[in-house]
Amino acid sequence: MSSSNTVFRSSTTAPVNIAVIKYWGKRDTVLNLPTNSSLSVTLSQKSLRTHTTASCSESFTGPDTLVLNGEKEDIQSSKRTQACLKVLRSLREALEAKDTSLPKLSKWTLRLVSTNNFPTAAGLASSAAGFAALVRAIADLYELPQSPKELSLIARQGSGSACRSLMGGYVAWRAGTKEDGSDSLAEEVASVSHWPDMRALILVVSAEKKGVPSTAGMQTTVETSTLAPARFKEIVPKRMQEIEKAIEERDFETFARITMQDSNSFHAICLDSWPPIHYLNDVSRAAMNAVETANRKAGKLICAYTFDAGPNAVIYYLQEHAHQVAGVFRNILPRVPGWEGEFGESIRPNEFGGLEQKTLMTLKAGVSRVICTAVGGGPEKVERHLVDESGNAVVE
Amino acid sequence: MSSSNTVFRSSTTAPVNIAVIKYWGKRDTVLNLPTNSSLSVTLSQKSLRTHTTASCSESFTGPDTLVLNGEKEDIQSSKRTQACLKVLRSLREALEAKDTSLPKLSKWTLRLVSTNNFPTAAGLASSAAGFAALVRAIADLYELPQSPKELSLIARQGSGSACRSLMGGYVAWRAGTKEDGSDSLAEEVASVSHWPDMRALILVVSAEKKGVPSTAGMQTTVETSTLAPARFKEIVPKRMQEIEKAIEERDFETFARITMQDSNSFHAICLDSWPPIHYLNDVSRAAMNAVETANRKAGKLICAYTFDAGPNAVIYYLQEHAHQVAGVFRNILPRVPGWEGEFGESIRPNEFGGLEQKTLMTLKAGVSRVICTAVGGGPEKVERHLVDESGNAVVE
Repeated sequence: MSSSNTVFRSSTTAPVNIAVIKYWGKRDTVLNLPTNSSLSVTLSQKSLRTHTTASCSESFTGPDTLVLNGEKEDIQSSKRTQACLKVLRSLREALEAKDTSLPKLSKWTLRLVSTNNFPTAAGLASSAAGFAALVRAIADLYELPQSPKELSLIARQGSGSACRSLMGGYVAWRAGTKEDGSDSLAEEVASVSHWPDMRALILVVSAEKKGVPSTAGMQTTVETSTLAPARFKEIVPKRMQEIEKAIEERDFETFARITMQDSNSFHAICLDSWPPIHYLNDVSRAAMNAVETANRKAGKLICAYTFDAGPNAVIYYLQEHAHQVAGVFRNILPRVPGWEGEFGESIRPNEFGGLEQKTLMTLKAGVSRVICTAVGGGPEKVERHLVDESGNAVVE
Repeated sequence: MSSSNTVFRSSTTAPVNIAVIKYWGKRDTVLNLPTNSSLSVTLSQKSLRTHTTASCSESFTGPDTLVLNGEKEDIQSSKRTQACLKVLRSLREALEAKDTSLPKLSKWTLRLVSTNNFPTAAGLASSAAGFAALVRAIADLYELPQSPKELSLIARQGSGSACRSLMGGYVAWRAGTKEDGSDSLAEEVASVSHWPDMRALILVVSAEKKGVPSTAGMQTTVETSTLAPARFKEIVPKRMQEIEKAIEERDFETFARITMQDSNSFHAICLDSWPPIHYLNDVSRAAMNAVETANRKAGKLICAYTFDAGPNAVIYYLQEHAHQVAGVFRNILPRVPGWEGEFGESIRPNEFGGLEQKTLMTLKAGVSRVICTAVGGGPEKVERHLVDESGNAVVE
């Protein structure tokens, strides 16, 4: 039996995802409907995850709150967060209307508490994991029957790429064509177990200043790039088909080529925007150069770079090539933090002679940490709550 | 009367040109037929020029020779040079056939001597000025009646962009559509006197290594860039019309915007090539940033950057804005060589507060010299010969 003081809680962790076919451009900025489909690899939550507890109680008063990494966020003026909460509440309301014995959680104040296990300073897009965890935690709190695919429609309204963090493995976000966005959702293309050997090495680059925020940047591209329409209409749809086939066949070489080409295509339309948008710097280009050199040395594509809206490099490779790929970077960057942990500790430094002095120096000077990770699963329900039984945020 | 020892000589100077609508991609690699039209500003020969003497004599023996900056070039194995010589000789032959009193210059060995007044180390594309001077000097030696436009068809076969250096002012290279290239030629869009106030400040960037050579690079783009077709077919033709109108109306703002957009579009298709091609580095981006800042401060576009196949920035501006544009760079780079001369010496340093420290430091560290120049005229016949009356190269 629950009294009016009972605090209902549900907690989840959600992963980060890094796209190999990039999302850049909205056809509807309110609903976060993209100009093209995209595809990502969900990364292991051992390395990168958001942990979120959703709680509510009849006794909670005042507006909904969110505490993120110990800081109170202003969610009242966040249209994106409000959009997610509104849809989730209406789904709960529908359950409550059908079964009047259910507690009226939809009417109560929500207290949300969230933490990331990675430094925000790392410049890693945490909004995807954040909105996925928020939606998943509230859906669990409300005991909603919706599938991850259905929930992805909601998370998408919080942050476009968040829809891809509701599933593990290899995830496609279908752009859809409907005006109301009801067909713009994420779906798993392949599970972790289909291709579990995928690894990702992230080179965190100390940027001097934050670049153009992605929401503003992608609108600039949509409105001004004369090269972008070809990417949206023809190039990405073709690549989506090709890379899904490559994933199905575990064809790393095709996966790698398309991943690199699509990253370059994305940064090309950024440069073609007016005013132009730059995310890659000389450190990023040194990382590209090191990847190209490792591939040349191997005589085939054994690694692939990709860059989001910032200078950090994400390098995909298979476990069997850990020494040939990650080992090269470990040899160049032996003392930066991040080589510990399940996916990093076994990487042996590779004394690789083929890199130019300039590339080495640029990487040494510009990479501040690494993150060694791998493909991983979707959100997980956890019993560790960040809100205690009295409804207070747990100080970690 | 000429004896068999008479040395016939003709000398010319030819200018460098810097495109504002870029040539990048050939539809025919033998004839140097481009995938799109392009447009350039011819730069003053006071700052940058090639001086070439063409000479021939019945007494000269052996193969044709070219001495460039004191070094003997291997022109026998240069298909491009051979193509130019062949056409020029055949035009002379036609004259000799019509008027049998003419000396048979077409049968005689050519001795060509050429010098640049700028350091080749500066990484400035000298092939345009070089082939324009070579074609012009031989055409004068042979007393060919062909117009600059007709000669541009020949120079084009030496180096595509050379066809634009046969005229002064603002020059378009029409891509043409014919398979034999007979309509792929240069024409003056506007003379120097139509818009004489155009200035160009070149920031010579010390690159660590030479990038991909443009001939190879443009073929890679044509063969692999999925964004390039839109540029070739739609984007450039539209921009050509717009910028020609802007030049006609002396509308600097439109000229500047299109110039910057087209440079960015060219580098975007380079990045979209496979493997990707990078010419811009952090110094180039600092120059772009300084140009953007000067424009923002002015509240309108008073300067425009453009980059060829390398990191050097060329910044166009009007004389009336010399202090607001070039003055900023003179203040940042007071001690690099190049501020002397007609177009540089009057530029007063501008203590401009709006630039970020990072941009300043990057420019200070990365720019090794400047060249202050302006729009200028086409090739000029000169009496100073680089071959003496006995047929020997003059040591300068």
